[in-house]
Amino acid sequence: MATPTAETMRPAPLPSDLEIARQADLKPISEVAARMGLGPGIVEPYGHHVGKIPLEAIESLATRPKGKYVVVSAITPTPLGEGKTTTSVGLAQGFHHIGRTATVALRQPSMGPTFGIKGGAAGGGWSQVVPMERINLHMTGDIHAVSAAHNLLAAMVDNHLYQGNAANLDPYQVAWRRVVDINDRGLRQIITGIGGKANGLPRETGFDITAASEVMAVLALADSLDDLRRRLGRVVVGWTPGGEPVTAEDIGCAGAMAVMLKEAMKPNLMQTLENTPVLVHAGPFGNIAHGNSSIVADRIGIHGGDFLVTEAGFGADMGAERFFNIKCRTSGMTPDAAVLVATVRGLKVHSGRHRVVAGKPLPESMLTENPEDVAIGAANLRKQIENMRMHGVPVVVAINAFPTDYASEHAVIAEVAESMGARVETCTHVKDGGAGAADLARAVEEAANEGSQFAPLYPADMPLSDKIECLATKVYGADGIDCSAQARRQLAAFTDNGYGHLPVCIAKTHLSLSSDPALHGAPTGWRMPVREARLSAGAGFVYALAGDMRTMPGLGSHPAAESIDLNEMGEIEGLF
Amino acid sequence: MATPTAETMRPAPLPSDLEIARQADLKPISEVAARMGLGPGIVEPYGHHVGKIPLEAIESLATRPKGKYVVVSAITPTPLGEGKTTTSVGLAQGFHHIGRTATVALRQPSMGPTFGIKGGAAGGGWSQVVPMERINLHMTGDIHAVSAAHNLLAAMVDNHLYQGNAANLDPYQVAWRRVVDINDRGLRQIITGIGGKANGLPRETGFDITAASEVMAVLALADSLDDLRRRLGRVVVGWTPGGEPVTAEDIGCAGAMAVMLKEAMKPNLMQTLENTPVLVHAGPFGNIAHGNSSIVADRIGIHGGDFLVTEAGFGADMGAERFFNIKCRTSGMTPDAAVLVATVRGLKVHSGRHRVVAGKPLPESMLTENPEDVAIGAANLRKQIENMRMHGVPVVVAINAFPTDYASEHAVIAEVAESMGARVETCTHVKDGGAGAADLARAVEEAANEGSQFAPLYPADMPLSDKIECLATKVYGADGIDCSAQARRQLAAFTDNGYGHLPVCIAKTHLSLSSDPALHGAPTGWRMPVREARLSAGAGFVYALAGDMRTMPGLGSHPAAESIDLNEMGEIEGLF
Repeated sequence: MATPTAETMRPAPLPSDLEIARQADLKPISEVAARMGLGPGIVEPYGHHVGKIPLEAIESLATRPKGKYVVVSAITPTPLGEGKTTTSVGLAQGFHHIGRTATVALRQPSMGPTFGIKGGAAGGGWSQVVPMERINLHMTGDIHAVSAAHNLLAAMVDNHLYQGNAANLDPYQVAWRRVVDINDRGLRQIITGIGGKANGLPRETGFDITAASEVMAVLALADSLDDLRRRLGRVVVGWTPGGEPVTAEDIGCAGAMAVMLKEAMKPNLMQTLENTPVLVHAGPFGNIAHGNSSIVADRIGIHGGDFLVTEAGFGADMGAERFFNIKCRTSGMTPDAAVLVATVRGLKVHSGRHRVVAGKPLPESMLTENPEDVAIGAANLRKQIENMRMHGVPVVVAINAFPTDYASEHAVIAEVAESMGARVETCTHVKDGGAGAADLARAVEEAANEGSQFAPLYPADMPLSDKIECLATKVYGADGIDCSAQARRQLAAFTDNGYGHLPVCIAKTHLSLSSDPALHGAPTGWRMPVREARLSAGAGFVYALAGDMRTMPGLGSHPAAESIDLNEMGEIEGLF
Repeated sequence: MATPTAETMRPAPLPSDLEIARQADLKPISEVAARMGLGPGIVEPYGHHVGKIPLEAIESLATRPKGKYVVVSAITPTPLGEGKTTTSVGLAQGFHHIGRTATVALRQPSMGPTFGIKGGAAGGGWSQVVPMERINLHMTGDIHAVSAAHNLLAAMVDNHLYQGNAANLDPYQVAWRRVVDINDRGLRQIITGIGGKANGLPRETGFDITAASEVMAVLALADSLDDLRRRLGRVVVGWTPGGEPVTAEDIGCAGAMAVMLKEAMKPNLMQTLENTPVLVHAGPFGNIAHGNSSIVADRIGIHGGDFLVTEAGFGADMGAERFFNIKCRTSGMTPDAAVLVATVRGLKVHSGRHRVVAGKPLPESMLTENPEDVAIGAANLRKQIENMRMHGVPVVVAINAFPTDYASEHAVIAEVAESMGARVETCTHVKDGGAGAADLARAVEEAANEGSQFAPLYPADMPLSDKIECLATKVYGADGIDCSAQARRQLAAFTDNGYGHLPVCIAKTHLSLSSDPALHGAPTGWRMPVREARLSAGAGFVYALAGDMRTMPGLGSHPAAESIDLNEMGEIEGLF
């Protein structure tokens, strides 16, 4: 690995993300498409710098060679963010610096948090996706289409009850809520249908943020328009009093939902600051869903050059685990290498010796040279490397360097990574763009050429509770699981109704390997509580609730929206 | 006028709208833009056949001559629909058949009714806007952007109450609801914020359909991005206990809303089956809002050729009245001619002798030759011609011919129109495309050259209740108004708070000139009840509720959604 130099360590004044983005030399989207081998007229422009790729491109690209498939994940995230998106973007740019072609695939960010706590999400520094106001706002409307399809089904479900309930749906067992792409705590729990008979049957229900919609997960996991239609039909909206599932097909809504989602099924094409093609498509939640961008984007991107870099949400135990066991299992695609992003400050937090708050300045104690804290926190890095390697995939640790890091601290990370059989490189892509990730790109190429032995962690025919226990013990380091009586009943019902073959998704905090967000590092000696099990039959997984999952964020005392405005020139300010 | 011939009367087998649309010879959107004088690179493509026009085009077109401004309205609508959209499209196509250039401006249809009762709304026969799956589904996402901006403000309002209520907003006087572009009766009246303190303050509220959002009316009435921003700031979300208005600016949300709506402010460009440019932009409700497409679209379209044909919602007493007194008053643009669409079957219904139900076959009695019923129903036509003429604008009656019409019936309409000083032409644009509206185009050109004496009906400084009475007596034919005590209090409060100069919009049934939907023709001897007054301070009007207005439709026993699906080729079926 390249030893971090004093130069990379010295704090250098970096222009703001916004200033950098405004300087970007954007290419017309047709030129970006050409870099992926997509000929003229294939990509449908949505504005001059965004395009949609029709699914026919999958066939038209099929004769082109397949690139290497690289998943980017991270250590267990801290409130600071480890820079997974910047590293994905930087790595793809880095490949171009070593004479390779690459495409990067990302999830579409939700607008809720953008106007809530954190502003935009499109990478940072010299590793950004542009135009950032497009990726951070409506883009091409896919998230809105998901909301509309989801909410049409909700209206059709209530209307079904109202118009005679031919499907015998139990009003007490309606599982389908509504969604909106706004942080709105007041909608978490509501009573609908009040005001008399003309307004329908009063029911207690609520809204989730759109990223939590099963429709979003369906969009991400469908591998064709046909498959989308079939998956929508399989969505379970509730149960009969006798315990039979009632589906969107039964309600007569799946076709209309597919029609609403027809355009949204086409992956969106954008570019990095260095004009590297970026596929942005689907944004399922990383807690109660699988947290990965779409299969169709990857099926297109894999033919787009020498490498496809795809990002998986949250830590390697969450996004990458589901990338392996849900996304790759569904798509049949095989990853060639995995990148694990680690930061000095993240590992210092994992030492348990520092408290940080998002948006607040780092405590002084975090900024002093302290390889010891990094070494303690590296327990998390060690476990996450193990989590990726247990799926048979070569791992490269990417040290996302910050100006406040010390060489001694990077050395600790390098030592841990190498002791676990992983390659390791320091990268400075935020400060230097693709040039700062060229070494990382070389290491990833080596790893990808090593020969992946990829295999999912558990077979499809393993009983659902065994799958949950397998993930809890092997990936999360629990001693075992404690299923509530309710969860046990639910898992049995899912199995009885023919859903036992589905993979599982553990809905747990992303802030700890354990189910307790306060525990740092790699906690041991704990058991995972499984409070409840839920079914995403259309998306194709069962999820187990191991802790309280918020599926609708709230706004803070000073929401980002308060600082977002147009300036006198009509330009957007405060989004970044 | 051209006498209807036996040929136009004979039922001829017409291919379905869908079959016709699929045969369309669509031009690239840049070619359509060129027909309006928009040079290469100005229009931002959204797919190959839809574009967005940046507002800078208003300035770049300013040196081009202004075309004539033609508003299309209709007799009081019946459940059958009179063909206002087909006539607008047909007329614009017709201009090209007489060697003139024209652009047509339409509202964007709401998706709610599309999946609810009626399928798509993009004209019909050989007078359609294409691609119809774009205009009927998400188009370029404008309606979704309106929903998002509206709902962000709702979340910010609830959050404001939750975080300490610095603006002293009275929780009992919150006027801002939420919106969704789905027919969902269960959301009409709801309780939010239940489940404990973390979920906010429990409140009774509800959802309207997005077309009813004040933000939609703001989008339609703003004449620049700056003006949009200012109007959003003026939106009143509720009142203090002392009766002071609390605005979106006070809540700190207006800037973020403007940012969300930045792309939506750009009018959308599409084309007719004959490649005539069509501007589709904004879709405010025709009941509680002004029911007209956007001012910015008209400001662009007026320079796009010899004529700009703009459609106003519902009957001439509603859409056209607001076109004159709200839209033109706001924009400063002056209409040169007004087209009033009438049908034989519509006037037969207005005779009060026939009952028709949308979607059901016409009763036999409607299909026999019956000029007498047409003559009785023509009371409505007479009043609507008067309503347009009292604004000083020359009127052309367009008889939208159906195969089941008789020449004697058309003759009655022609006689009534001419007796009222209006021109009249029969048109067959549904069957014949623009060629079927060439005579109408000639008559409209004559009328437009006559010299309009346009003036709004009432001055801005007339007291609000006098404005309401003026519209009720002059336009609707009431003997007077009966204001409830509540409405009187509200109007006084609006005036006290500085909103007395705003124009008014009467929110009443569109199915009758009176406030009783069961009354046909031109009812006399009635008084208009004004139950309640509401303020759209951002859009810039006060609306008076004269009857029960549904701002959220429900789904029927067999929603259109049940028949909408993708076929084996992935094409959309059932939308039309």
